[in-house]
Amino acid sequence: MMGKKCVGIDVGGTTVKLGLFEEDGRLLRKWEIPTRKENHGAAILSDVAESIKTVLAEEGVELSDVRGAGIGVPGPVTGDGYVPACVNLGWTDSYPGRELKELLGGISVKCANDANVAALGEMWQGGGKGYRDVVMLTLGTGVGGGVVINEKILAGIHGLGGEVGHIHVRDEETEYCNCGNKGCLEQVASATGIAREARRHMAASDEPSVLRELGDNVTAKDVLDAAKEGDKLALQVMDVVGHYLGVALAAIAQTVDPEIFVIGGGVSKAGQFLIDQIQGHYEQNLNLSAYRPAIGLARLGNDAGIYGSARLVLD
Amino acid sequence: MMGKKCVGIDVGGTTVKLGLFEEDGRLLRKWEIPTRKENHGAAILSDVAESIKTVLAEEGVELSDVRGAGIGVPGPVTGDGYVPACVNLGWTDSYPGRELKELLGGISVKCANDANVAALGEMWQGGGKGYRDVVMLTLGTGVGGGVVINEKILAGIHGLGGEVGHIHVRDEETEYCNCGNKGCLEQVASATGIAREARRHMAASDEPSVLRELGDNVTAKDVLDAAKEGDKLALQVMDVVGHYLGVALAAIAQTVDPEIFVIGGGVSKAGQFLIDQIQGHYEQNLNLSAYRPAIGLARLGNDAGIYGSARLVLD
Repeated sequence: MMGKKCVGIDVGGTTVKLGLFEEDGRLLRKWEIPTRKENHGAAILSDVAESIKTVLAEEGVELSDVRGAGIGVPGPVTGDGYVPACVNLGWTDSYPGRELKELLGGISVKCANDANVAALGEMWQGGGKGYRDVVMLTLGTGVGGGVVINEKILAGIHGLGGEVGHIHVRDEETEYCNCGNKGCLEQVASATGIAREARRHMAASDEPSVLRELGDNVTAKDVLDAAKEGDKLALQVMDVVGHYLGVALAAIAQTVDPEIFVIGGGVSKAGQFLIDQIQGHYEQNLNLSAYRPAIGLARLGNDAGIYGSARLVLD
Repeated sequence: MMGKKCVGIDVGGTTVKLGLFEEDGRLLRKWEIPTRKENHGAAILSDVAESIKTVLAEEGVELSDVRGAGIGVPGPVTGDGYVPACVNLGWTDSYPGRELKELLGGISVKCANDANVAALGEMWQGGGKGYRDVVMLTLGTGVGGGVVINEKILAGIHGLGGEVGHIHVRDEETEYCNCGNKGCLEQVASATGIAREARRHMAASDEPSVLRELGDNVTAKDVLDAAKEGDKLALQVMDVVGHYLGVALAAIAQTVDPEIFVIGGGVSKAGQFLIDQIQGHYEQNLNLSAYRPAIGLARLGNDAGIYGSARLVLD
């Protein structure tokens, strides 16, 4: 007698990642298909449905043995699964969950924002496992986030829940963020932001550094690698990055007070060293109590989205 | 046939405010008693219990007609009603709800932090009535706050939920906040902070202002009154205050995305004019979407605490 299965779907701009899970969180199989964005992404959901049916048949799983499927979408999703506009896929004014439900013989399908879904995945089987209140920050090309309270995504009716990358942290910033404001966390704590900060530091001082031979091609990974080796300029850059990440985490803690923060995305590959750069600034800006949310690392990497979207259907 | 009643108790450092309510939120009677802080506040809860029994008798209400009582406490309270230390009252290591329950013949008693309880009160019958997700900011001597999601207080296991007054917003701040950090929202947006900002502006410029004759005695009310009359220096002060309040509200919105913000406390007596000083800065720092949480005024004044503590027992 097998338990029920659930399916997680993480729709990205290039590929759709899919996973077949047991209800207890065990990943049975994962695979991916291309995202066909032509014609306003009209084929994406039927491609997804066909691929799921094929894999279920290969695995000998009937649709009636599937408790449901969750789908993470790279754009705003309201609490009832409505997608006003998803620029990355070309979708507008749609209910992807409802459409996919029809294509999958009426099984339960839920839809949420991809960053929020990743946070839910890390809560379920990743760096936040064992906790009910988790805030995830994803430090990649941009800075994304998700707030999970009492094991549920806090999306908000305006879809702004967990949009922590655009928290304003830096009054002195002179360049514009993609969002049109100046001084967003994303501008200093994303991979792009860390590299830019390094270029600024190189231009503003004569401090010798291994980064100088890389010049404008310096990456966030270069900065973190150099900082780990004790490079003074790289450490100065990471002190600025750590300050603003600490400020933002402290602000979030003094709003929703999660049990744990989980840091993911490419920048988090620097591991505990990255957290060490944040910790002192975080504590300084969260001075009310020595008892505060921990900061940990994400564990699921690019699979966080399929875990979290599968978890959506278990409520 | 009468409905059940509930009792709200708001324990302050000088007086305890009490209210007798119908379950539908109608306030039947309110009164207050002194807070006897001597002997580590040992008499406070028995004073409260005696006073409630007296008033119930006067009103012809039996304890069996009371659904329960809620008690708001000026200090950290964990989700299960534990008070590690309440400096203002002298309490340590106590469960005030459990003690009061014993003193009131075993009726249900719940305990929470006073600022969180005020937010719940405003959600129930005040400026947040009709909404389920409300964040309240109280701009008084300090800056307090409370986060209500899905009609419930978000206290957090460290008791940091809604401690928005200590969100760090100002890197350039040189003086220390009471919490030991520099640059907290409270340092610029409390009544004390607004007055200090006015003193700084007077010292730093030659701008003529009606505030100059008040000198170091200038208050937040003076600043707001002068700004309403178009006083240029007072408007400059309020632009700084509005900037940091806008930054903090935008950060909170991009974390928990409430339906509405409710602004209370003495500073909020300036009414819509205060919100007008915040609105532009708030929108600038919340640029992801034109669809965002509204900012409104609190309506219950000093009664927010008794409303919210009574509401605690209705879950």
